Amino acid sequence: MKKLDASIIIAFKNAIGEENVIIDHDKLIFYATDHSIAQAVVPQLVVLPSTTEMVSEIMKICYANEVPITVRAGGSGLVGGAVPTHGGIVMDIKKMDKILQIDEANFQVTVEPAMITEVLQNTLKSRGLYYPPDPSSRGTSFIGGNVATNAGGPRAVKYGVVREYVLNLEVVLPDGRIIWTGANTLKNSTGYSLTQLMIGSEGTLGIITKIVLKLIPHPTHDLLLLAPFMSVKDASKAVSAIFKAGITPSAIGELMDRKAIDWAADYLELDRMDIGDTIKAQLLIEVDGFEIDQLQKECEKIYEVLSQFEVDEILFADSAAQKNELWKLRRNIANAVKVHKTYKKEDTVVPRDHMPQLLEAIEQLEIKYGFDAICFGHAGDGNLHINIVQGDRTDEEVKHWHQALVDLLLTVKKLGGTLSGEHGIGIVQKEFMPLMLDRANLELMKGIKSVFDPKNILNPEKIF
Amino acid sequence: MKKLDASIIIAFKNAIGEENVIIDHDKLIFYATDHSIAQAVVPQLVVLPSTTEMVSEIMKICYANEVPITVRAGGSGLVGGAVPTHGGIVMDIKKMDKILQIDEANFQVTVEPAMITEVLQNTLKSRGLYYPPDPSSRGTSFIGGNVATNAGGPRAVKYGVVREYVLNLEVVLPDGRIIWTGANTLKNSTGYSLTQLMIGSEGTLGIITKIVLKLIPHPTHDLLLLAPFMSVKDASKAVSAIFKAGITPSAIGELMDRKAIDWAADYLELDRMDIGDTIKAQLLIEVDGFEIDQLQKECEKIYEVLSQFEVDEILFADSAAQKNELWKLRRNIANAVKVHKTYKKEDTVVPRDHMPQLLEAIEQLEIKYGFDAICFGHAGDGNLHINIVQGDRTDEEVKHWHQALVDLLLTVKKLGGTLSGEHGIGIVQKEFMPLMLDRANLELMKGIKSVFDPKNILNPEKIF
Repeated sequence: MKKLDASIIIAFKNAIGEENVIIDHDKLIFYATDHSIAQAVVPQLVVLPSTTEMVSEIMKICYANEVPITVRAGGSGLVGGAVPTHGGIVMDIKKMDKILQIDEANFQVTVEPAMITEVLQNTLKSRGLYYPPDPSSRGTSFIGGNVATNAGGPRAVKYGVVREYVLNLEVVLPDGRIIWTGANTLKNSTGYSLTQLMIGSEGTLGIITKIVLKLIPHPTHDLLLLAPFMSVKDASKAVSAIFKAGITPSAIGELMDRKAIDWAADYLELDRMDIGDTIKAQLLIEVDGFEIDQLQKECEKIYEVLSQFEVDEILFADSAAQKNELWKLRRNIANAVKVHKTYKKEDTVVPRDHMPQLLEAIEQLEIKYGFDAICFGHAGDGNLHINIVQGDRTDEEVKHWHQALVDLLLTVKKLGGTLSGEHGIGIVQKEFMPLMLDRANLELMKGIKSVFDPKNILNPEKIF
Repeated sequence: MKKLDASIIIAFKNAIGEENVIIDHDKLIFYATDHSIAQAVVPQLVVLPSTTEMVSEIMKICYANEVPITVRAGGSGLVGGAVPTHGGIVMDIKKMDKILQIDEANFQVTVEPAMITEVLQNTLKSRGLYYPPDPSSRGTSFIGGNVATNAGGPRAVKYGVVREYVLNLEVVLPDGRIIWTGANTLKNSTGYSLTQLMIGSEGTLGIITKIVLKLIPHPTHDLLLLAPFMSVKDASKAVSAIFKAGITPSAIGELMDRKAIDWAADYLELDRMDIGDTIKAQLLIEVDGFEIDQLQKECEKIYEVLSQFEVDEILFADSAAQKNELWKLRRNIANAVKVHKTYKKEDTVVPRDHMPQLLEAIEQLEIKYGFDAICFGHAGDGNLHINIVQGDRTDEEVKHWHQALVDLLLTVKKLGGTLSGEHGIGIVQKEFMPLMLDRANLELMKGIKSVFDPKNILNPEKIF
């Protein structure tokens, strides 16, 4: 890692003001990690722009001096996307956190990238507007980070992922030029979609400085069911059965295997036994809409479908307090897992109906390699989060698990699935890209990277 | 235009069989045009592959010999995308027209590119499955062409455009390599989205040979309203008002200005007077869903909203025959316009609420430049088709209209809109790209083209 020239540091201070440049090591340490298992790397300097123009000035300096730069959004990423692996500097965008325009007539909002997703959603909700994508991290993650990883969340099953809500992006290119990638329109067939290319590019192609999102009317009602199953595969099959019955829940198959339930219960200091020891999985199912009668009918249909499986008593929630109670275990699995050392988090995704096969493959790998996998996630869209727990084992003791990951991912590929459903690749998943994608695909991606970033200064070493 | 070497013709015949190579001029003429105003260019040769492997073999020959090639889907394009402007050869994909798999469990279909969109939709409907995008050309256009242009249609307002339904594509690259661009999953954050980049790339990056589409349950009921307005701007405002009331129709603002109505009536040999001479515009509004009671409630709400405007008697259709009757005028505008020589068709799109300003600007341009513009389209998503009729005027007489197009497009840009909502750019709209997009955007697009197609053999001279 090349040390930053004093002249470059001065250039940054002149361009954006001394108060927006951090060089104090104690403060730089904060920028060395995100929520992933990626190795910490302390940047040499952090810049904090508050306008697009400042971002552009920073990039001009980086471009002229070939200084690598990593943009950091909410820092809640799970693949090391915000870690300055290549050294150089970090751009903390937290000052760019404003809603610029809520265009109610056109059902659009223009927002800066550091707006916290949940804050944006709440502001919109108060006006009857809905931006559905709700990654579990939505209380801390930034909308800009959500766009950079093409985030999903429980409601993707009905409403789709971030990709389906981004109309237009203001982007600063590596050489400092500022562009809009598209137009603020619902339809657009005007050349290649640079907007769609930016989405999920994890800060490697350009820096997103403004985001125009499509909105929809906010549903006025929702109901929640929690179904306890005697088998995780049955729970997974029930998900498919509900869709086949013509129902599209707003969240479904928020699936938790028994280990996930137990760990979350322990974390919340609940009694595992209260859950019932025959229960092997739970399924959360939410429906939403504008007419309560209609939703009640849908719930009845769901009951009917579920009754074909071996389920324990189905819990039903219509008050906010009851709903929070039902969501509590699901929302705390990630926290529960965090308490233990994680060997690896996978974010595999397969066609929905192949989830039972994936769960079965994981069971076999657990036996073969002797590890614990805590499985939970979005069965409705085939997206399973697999947390392999290292616990107190030494790195040496778990070295052979690497082969288990390879076996797992090859199974996912065979089932028509892929490496990441919503977390992205970053640095943590990079080594598996050649396993999952053809050489031609990787060559095309690298070629695109070179077109946008010929000096390879934007978040280098990420994705491929 | 370089003449094809006899050795290349032999190579094609050897690779895919003599019966799949057309060199007879009488048959080649058919391939010189599409439904656009693009100048006809007769190709030197046409190839008709029936498998991905044949497409790959063809591309290897083209790549080795640097022969330009233009892929032709249904030939219903409006921008000259299928015209072999650069000479060389045309690939007619019509033999690749099969449904390969309907995966009901995962709500997916895998289809070859030459399947006619309407045939696909009807087949799926019989199984309760819905692929919503329905361009007006759906009776003749191919699904592959729909993907290549990111087509839309009336139902895009509720269900979105083609882009939102494509999960994965098999693509033959210019050098003959075969790739899948993604995975058959609802979520995917595994590197740059090559799938999304292919969509709307108009045959310039690769040849689409298989398409995996996301499906949804087919709505079981729909109702249709036709509202006659005294002013086209009022009709346009009513569209916004309906959305603001929290209703999302499955098609709306299928807006027709009075000229469009009259021309379609003449074409259908109906009496213009039957429509009422105070009527200046009609709006078609469709709602769909799974519960008829619910739809009736929505229609009542729409009536309420419409009653705030100056409307004539609203027609209501719930039988198939009545619905066809109401759609008849709208569906025949394009045919009616075709009878007359068109100077230019525009496919402008603006944020929905800005449609009245766009209509006003067009009125002023009609007066200033002395032309007739037949306006119709999808007011629900701000997509207005503007047909400027040349009629019997000579090319010399309409030469100055070019400036009117420039004025129009600059207005569209100022309103936050863009050049094409659903038709694409092809050769016909290419000259306006620098007017609408920044140089940096065009440079990035050209750079991407070079990455995919370094020898510039795939549909050269198109888009930019």
